[in-house]
Amino acid sequence: MHADTPGEFDIIARYFTRHSARRDVLLGVGDDAALLQVPADRRLVAAMDTLVEGVHFPAATAADHIGYRALAVNLSDLAAMGAEPSWALLSLSLPNAEPAWLQGFADGFFGLAARHGVELVGGDTVRGPLVVTVQVLGVVESNGILKRSGAQPGDLVYVSGIPGEAAAGLNVIQTGKAGSDAAMQLRQRFERPEPRVELGRALRTLATAAMDVSDGLLTDLGKLCRASGCEATLNLDLLPASLLMRTLYDAEATERFALAGGDDYELLFTLAPERVAEFEHVVSPLALCTCIGKIARGGQAPGTVTCLRNGQTVAVNAPGFDHFARQ
Amino acid sequence: MHADTPGEFDIIARYFTRHSARRDVLLGVGDDAALLQVPADRRLVAAMDTLVEGVHFPAATAADHIGYRALAVNLSDLAAMGAEPSWALLSLSLPNAEPAWLQGFADGFFGLAARHGVELVGGDTVRGPLVVTVQVLGVVESNGILKRSGAQPGDLVYVSGIPGEAAAGLNVIQTGKAGSDAAMQLRQRFERPEPRVELGRALRTLATAAMDVSDGLLTDLGKLCRASGCEATLNLDLLPASLLMRTLYDAEATERFALAGGDDYELLFTLAPERVAEFEHVVSPLALCTCIGKIARGGQAPGTVTCLRNGQTVAVNAPGFDHFARQ
Repeated sequence: MHADTPGEFDIIARYFTRHSARRDVLLGVGDDAALLQVPADRRLVAAMDTLVEGVHFPAATAADHIGYRALAVNLSDLAAMGAEPSWALLSLSLPNAEPAWLQGFADGFFGLAARHGVELVGGDTVRGPLVVTVQVLGVVESNGILKRSGAQPGDLVYVSGIPGEAAAGLNVIQTGKAGSDAAMQLRQRFERPEPRVELGRALRTLATAAMDVSDGLLTDLGKLCRASGCEATLNLDLLPASLLMRTLYDAEATERFALAGGDDYELLFTLAPERVAEFEHVVSPLALCTCIGKIARGGQAPGTVTCLRNGQTVAVNAPGFDHFARQ
Repeated sequence: MHADTPGEFDIIARYFTRHSARRDVLLGVGDDAALLQVPADRRLVAAMDTLVEGVHFPAATAADHIGYRALAVNLSDLAAMGAEPSWALLSLSLPNAEPAWLQGFADGFFGLAARHGVELVGGDTVRGPLVVTVQVLGVVESNGILKRSGAQPGDLVYVSGIPGEAAAGLNVIQTGKAGSDAAMQLRQRFERPEPRVELGRALRTLATAAMDVSDGLLTDLGKLCRASGCEATLNLDLLPASLLMRTLYDAEATERFALAGGDDYELLFTLAPERVAEFEHVVSPLALCTCIGKIARGGQAPGTVTCLRNGQTVAVNAPGFDHFARQ
């Protein structure tokens, strides 16, 4: 190995130990485990997501995007519960310890962590293939949390942001459609998804159900419906238009990205019709949210999502992302 | 893929969803995050460790050993803090979804989890190289926790179990020294380390400092001393004798395993001399613990460990495990 390559303990000391800003961190990085103070009137929320090189991001992805993304996808899970993120643990399996790579990764990770007041309190650094696992801990008030299972027949279905742009961004990277402003902005949507933490906090006592869109809108809406014992209609005419996607792709590809593309990390949620006015007032300033469908009573097959175009049922083939799906 | 291969959601449903036994799990596997209730008078303890195939365990290791071990090394971290384990999250990166492998892994993981009353509440299953990350959450009383940094000059140094047997067990596997009872038992010490949770709980208000031995006794004692701003003497004549190791290895190899071998997951701790009588009474029935040295004032180089044999200082070359060490 290169003589400047830092050892495991140097890596932790040099790149992953920061001055503690949170008073609820009684013991952070450096001991066998972290010691944390959860407020007595709060409940603990825990999520963990893994990114594998070549599976969740292309092999050439810059280190700062990987660091950012590994935290962002976890913050998105907490956002989907309406929780406030507090602490993170990081497991980094690395083929080698390249200082520039480590610095980039740390910059991406800590930049996003600082914006959300999240502190890194522990983890592990090992030699192996490039695999990043982040675990985020947060807290939520005891009078309610957002679940997937709360949707009721008659509720309206909303999504934040513009579904599909992250998947289009990945396609831009994979096919080398570089150069244009639209390509750059779509790429950014894949590389720097914005976890909707503030939106999730605002929805906590407003929405009946929520989840984040990570495996594709159609698949994820199906999961929400299954968890709620309901069905849903999804009105394709209501999908928010993406000028960025339409600059580079035709209408068919754009719709496929919107329905089947993963990686958006936007929130999908349901709202009782009588809460819409309050919702518009409170939530609209935080993020673009679009009503795209409606929850219906679950029939023979809860979880079914029926797509409509011009008021007519249409068949859509848009399987979501499943790592172990039969090919 | 094989037609019987389960999909990602099937894997979670079939192998990693168990009936909830803990009333403090308000929402477990199946939503975007878990919702947990930390008792108001307890603090939260969080640890995360990663095992990579070919790095932390040989490629041919049986799935149940991997599942057991991934949880055990994390429980060991909590034991080292004197905490009570409560919940776990599991990230499993797998090259393929082989039902027999998954069943074995789940058996190993849940078998150990059940013994400690730990519930799996979330995680991630992705396709990739075989990398397992477990995150364990536990709780501890607010009147004290075991840290690495509490050792004082004059304290006695203790270790539980018989250091080196796990490393010898790995050597048995790697060199194919099969057949004998001693080989089988050493192998077991590597494959099924016993996390010292009960011992850690008993030491919580007795020991001045503690950590678990994962990178080698000498390295880890050095870390404890550095964290405490002290030095230590380690009396080689006091190392607990291993009949198992001596059956298969000479005295020199046995000592090298004891000092430099990682993977023991025993507890290394320090005790004020005036607490020894109480310690003997309370702790001795829980695990074999041996006094192996003494803490001294930190001089020019806190963290220094001086080895003694027959009362004389001896030089020992036993570097501990560092994934990114210069080779």
